[in-house]
Amino acid sequence: MIGIGLIGYGYWGPNLARNFASQPECRILRICDTRKDRTEAAAFAYPGVEVSNHYQSILNHAEIDLVLIATPVITHFQLAKESLLAGKDVLVEKPLTSCSHEAVELIRIAEENERILAVDHTFLYSGAVEKMKELVGSGELGEITYIDSVRVNLGLFQADVSVIYDLAPHDLSIIDYLIGREPVTVQAMGIRHGNHNVEHLAYMHLEYEDNLIAHFHLNWLAPVKIRQTLIGGSKKMIVYDDMEPSEKVKVYDKGIALTEEIPEAPMRWKVDYRIGDMVAPKLVHREPLHAEAEHILSCVKNRIRPRADGEAGCRVARILEATQRSIENGGTRVMLGEV
Amino acid sequence: MIGIGLIGYGYWGPNLARNFASQPECRILRICDTRKDRTEAAAFAYPGVEVSNHYQSILNHAEIDLVLIATPVITHFQLAKESLLAGKDVLVEKPLTSCSHEAVELIRIAEENERILAVDHTFLYSGAVEKMKELVGSGELGEITYIDSVRVNLGLFQADVSVIYDLAPHDLSIIDYLIGREPVTVQAMGIRHGNHNVEHLAYMHLEYEDNLIAHFHLNWLAPVKIRQTLIGGSKKMIVYDDMEPSEKVKVYDKGIALTEEIPEAPMRWKVDYRIGDMVAPKLVHREPLHAEAEHILSCVKNRIRPRADGEAGCRVARILEATQRSIENGGTRVMLGEV
Amino acid sequence: MIGIGLIGYGYWGPNLARNFASQPECRILRICDTRKDRTEAAAFAYPGVEVSNHYQSILNHAEIDLVLIATPVITHFQLAKESLLAGKDVLVEKPLTSCSHEAVELIRIAEENERILAVDHTFLYSGAVEKMKELVGSGELGEITYIDSVRVNLGLFQADVSVIYDLAPHDLSIIDYLIGREPVTVQAMGIRHGNHNVEHLAYMHLEYEDNLIAHFHLNWLAPVKIRQTLIGGSKKMIVYDDMEPSEKVKVYDKGIALTEEIPEAPMRWKVDYRIGDMVAPKLVHREPLHAEAEHILSCVKNRIRPRADGEAGCRVARILEATQRSIENGGTRVMLGEV
Amino acid sequence: MIGIGLIGYGYWGPNLARNFASQPECRILRICDTRKDRTEAAAFAYPGVEVSNHYQSILNHAEIDLVLIATPVITHFQLAKESLLAGKDVLVEKPLTSCSHEAVELIRIAEENERILAVDHTFLYSGAVEKMKELVGSGELGEITYIDSVRVNLGLFQADVSVIYDLAPHDLSIIDYLIGREPVTVQAMGIRHGNHNVEHLAYMHLEYEDNLIAHFHLNWLAPVKIRQTLIGGSKKMIVYDDMEPSEKVKVYDKGIALTEEIPEAPMRWKVDYRIGDMVAPKLVHREPLHAEAEHILSCVKNRIRPRADGEAGCRVARILEATQRSIENGGTRVMLGEV
Repeated sequence: MIGIGLIGYGYWGPNLARNFASQPECRILRICDTRKDRTEAAAFAYPGVEVSNHYQSILNHAEIDLVLIATPVITHFQLAKESLLAGKDVLVEKPLTSCSHEAVELIRIAEENERILAVDHTFLYSGAVEKMKELVGSGELGEITYIDSVRVNLGLFQADVSVIYDLAPHDLSIIDYLIGREPVTVQAMGIRHGNHNVEHLAYMHLEYEDNLIAHFHLNWLAPVKIRQTLIGGSKKMIVYDDMEPSEKVKVYDKGIALTEEIPEAPMRWKVDYRIGDMVAPKLVHREPLHAEAEHILSCVKNRIRPRADGEAGCRVARILEATQRSIENGGTRVMLGEV
Repeated sequence: MIGIGLIGYGYWGPNLARNFASQPECRILRICDTRKDRTEAAAFAYPGVEVSNHYQSILNHAEIDLVLIATPVITHFQLAKESLLAGKDVLVEKPLTSCSHEAVELIRIAEENERILAVDHTFLYSGAVEKMKELVGSGELGEITYIDSVRVNLGLFQADVSVIYDLAPHDLSIIDYLIGREPVTVQAMGIRHGNHNVEHLAYMHLEYEDNLIAHFHLNWLAPVKIRQTLIGGSKKMIVYDDMEPSEKVKVYDKGIALTEEIPEAPMRWKVDYRIGDMVAPKLVHREPLHAEAEHILSCVKNRIRPRADGEAGCRVARILEATQRSIENGGTRVMLGEV
Repeated sequence: MIGIGLIGYGYWGPNLARNFASQPECRILRICDTRKDRTEAAAFAYPGVEVSNHYQSILNHAEIDLVLIATPVITHFQLAKESLLAGKDVLVEKPLTSCSHEAVELIRIAEENERILAVDHTFLYSGAVEKMKELVGSGELGEITYIDSVRVNLGLFQADVSVIYDLAPHDLSIIDYLIGREPVTVQAMGIRHGNHNVEHLAYMHLEYEDNLIAHFHLNWLAPVKIRQTLIGGSKKMIVYDDMEPSEKVKVYDKGIALTEEIPEAPMRWKVDYRIGDMVAPKLVHREPLHAEAEHILSCVKNRIRPRADGEAGCRVARILEATQRSIENGGTRVMLGEV
Repeated sequence: MIGIGLIGYGYWGPNLARNFASQPECRILRICDTRKDRTEAAAFAYPGVEVSNHYQSILNHAEIDLVLIATPVITHFQLAKESLLAGKDVLVEKPLTSCSHEAVELIRIAEENERILAVDHTFLYSGAVEKMKELVGSGELGEITYIDSVRVNLGLFQADVSVIYDLAPHDLSIIDYLIGREPVTVQAMGIRHGNHNVEHLAYMHLEYEDNLIAHFHLNWLAPVKIRQTLIGGSKKMIVYDDMEPSEKVKVYDKGIALTEEIPEAPMRWKVDYRIGDMVAPKLVHREPLHAEAEHILSCVKNRIRPRADGEAGCRVARILEATQRSIENGGTRVMLGEV
């Protein structure tokens, strides 16, 4: 039986609590939050669980094996570091840290102490992303040429992070998982609402080797909720719409081929369109966070590296850092290597 | 009765022909195209109309008052210039010219010769854009903070122009009409397919004074056709979906207010969400090009300036030029004033 | 503090438990189900609540004021009757009873014993239905001429009730609430799957006075989930789509007027179409069952008649009975008065 | 070169004219309509074609081989009969005749005179219906158990025919083509608007042998346009949405199996759900009426029976007649054999 401690019972903490509570392999032993109203809510929801307003009570708890951290980003580094040093395995809400050198440091500590460092990239455990991973991996799409994601809705405004730190980790973790490589450059542009001091609308543009680009529209000020990703491949293309109740992933057997220049018209190409069936493959139906909890517990038990480990969290943090630098410099192109 | 000559009977020319042919105020007298198959098609479709493979036959035709130009962009300047100098009024397909100094020159010639120079910004005559113009103009949306447009589909690949020159004029002319001001800076990023020498996927990012931005996703390689524009206002927001058969414009009475810092939590704001009704206003139902033809003929008859005049065409051409410069320089921010 | 006993912890019982458990005005004291696996699940989910496999333990419990009944339809009458006679108020899952004379009997017992008899017509407490009630009541739609509902999906197959008893109570209770009158005749047609002995696809056709009709398509064998109701009024029309995440109710200012016969063409009418704005009014956002629980508790406390009382349940049961009779007689028209 | 005469240039006639005019195999020689404004419109649109206000001028025209009839239903019989007797092949707009015995008579005359009698069941030539025919024919869907169609919109009100005669022929001709058998019984219910003397909203319910049913919702008073058909098969199911711009036919690999009674629970069945991929097969993209014109001309040339012949028109007319009888008798079940 794996003992669990949860630090942070605000927006995301209750979701972690609910999904780990329903796992037979573990037991939540203690929930901490600095705010009293939140620990009271936790005590009401989980009668058998101890609550505390001091996270140290989790680090000191001998039976706690795994610490779940769902606090503001700025506190992730300190809490994860102390947890690891206290001999705990750790699962940190995304993004892992606010800058990449903190992530590097956490990875080092985890390795030295042979602890598991996992980051909560929840989408990697959804049926839709797993299916896309399978499709990309099998080569069915051909060469991926672009990924375009729109992730917009009204709110939820946060004070301590911009829309980029709030929403981009979803897209970045998905792409990291799907294509397994890092961008070479990052550009970003955004606007801030009134006297707010972080971006609430932003665009990110990532360039990879081999002519692949990724582009995100992240927005807290849209009147409608859109969660739509286009993946362009040389053979097939995907539309992934997470708002669809059932057919979230659609695979289009469509493409284009510029075969040859037309002799009598220099610079004009003969274009062949290829339009075939569209298939919405069957997806595994489950709550991603539930699958993730299961996976993390299995990693803790068997001492194996989780799907989203410290390295994955670090790669995302590095891109976020470059993004921030670009936005502060008026959208200039930032080499990821510089970060 | 206004005499019409049409130069260019490829993709767009037949649409111009059909819409001007149905106007009782004018008569199409001659249709030119360098390709024989096209003039044959024109002769078949319009038995009473003369056809020719030499555009000069239109310039020389004494009874032709208005020349419609629907040829490749690169030829617009020369054909429009000669037409104006031959004493004709001119309607040029968008974009007016491939660079802004040509547009400036055409405006000068038109003025000196007291001829009408119109550019075919068809969307300005659609019921949806007219309704949005009314909504923006009335102040109902409050202050506009962003305009985001997605204009993607599979093909139609063109050899002589990039996806930017093909699709962006639609968005640029609509925004020019809606907000009546020019951007200060332009950034653009794009990719080219295989050995194709122009972009087939591009993103444009425009910054205006007063913290307004506009952003476009233009793409010939998308598996689905999307024509969706979000307009964010401080009071209301619009979703304009041109693929919707009837409710193309939806006005959301939604917004957000960051009222005050929360005293006990510095940097944290109290956020008020405002969510009211959504209204899809009744739109005038008609073919935009038909309304445009009517408008242009009325301008010709009454010697008045058309809704989309040479200046409008020039403003669009200037942004396209800055876009091109940005894309060639790796997405750097180009001041519009530099162009 | 109102004491609650719940009988039945199968499909719907857990929803009742969850929504009453979160009300500060009451406390769930005991949960019963004949199946052990279910009482175990209840005990796990509600550590402080007693469980039992005998419903009598609820009737005998002195502190239980309100009994919630969520068992198979066939048992409703007996359980509700005994509960009322034991001096409890009662909320019964829909449909109230399998035949109307049982409903009449329950109403009588409740009145004689001054107990509250409520039926769980959950939809009446949804923001969408409340808004439609307001629209119909205000006369904004004009005279209602038809209501057409499609309620289809794959499964959930039930053995003891047909698709009619499973799904029609939703539509019947909504219409009963919206228009406040009973149909004069009922017709129904259906099919059974293979050797299944109840209908899994059925159509119901209800005729009211004043030329109003209602028609339902109820189907457990559809590949997609559709929950769409059209309400035709002489002034405006509603499309209510319960699958829409936010704009569930759309009000169309559309209509038609057959003004006069065209003199030169006997039997031909001049038709005027009226097409105005569409409005999706803001809806109250909440879980209907939560609002219902609040309402029932307030009725129990203040001894007032609930929105969906025994009479409402009886009216629905009477229509179901007539429906059954029609379907057994090959779709003949059954007068409701005959039942 | 096949000579064409067209009788009727109201709503549908111009569509026939346009599609036959673009076929190289034929030439439209004469267009008739009793109304002068319509023959003027025809003369304007087709400068080389003669027009007349007397249909006899078509029957007498020696070079006319094929007569297209697009007049009110009530005139179909007389015009088709005279055309056939004048030695012409005939294509009649749907429905072929207003009652089935007229259809029988036309078939007889056509046979005796060795003329081709075709009915304009346009949908049979659409890519969507052709694909569904292929799917049904291949057995991929298994046994068809139900077909449900919703065909609703606002208007177009007609004076001489009900919504049934206007819209049902589409569904009836599609089903006739797909499953190739006739229903055993027909039931229908409807309402009339105000003092209008034909139904503007109707439901039809058809029962076939082997437990197959078809059900249609036909409505001229709906605020939205819906064209959706569900086809339930024992192996797969289809959703055919004709309003979709591209993926009109979706094939769901979904189903249900009631395998066996659960021993300890008599009357309860073990239900197996089967949920697989959804496929939207590539459809041939073309205007159905254009394909139909091509087909009819080929039949005329090669003296072969058209896809939709007099028999097909007669089968549809017979169902319409039974429908009418049912609606006049309050929705009673009418045996098709009685008609």
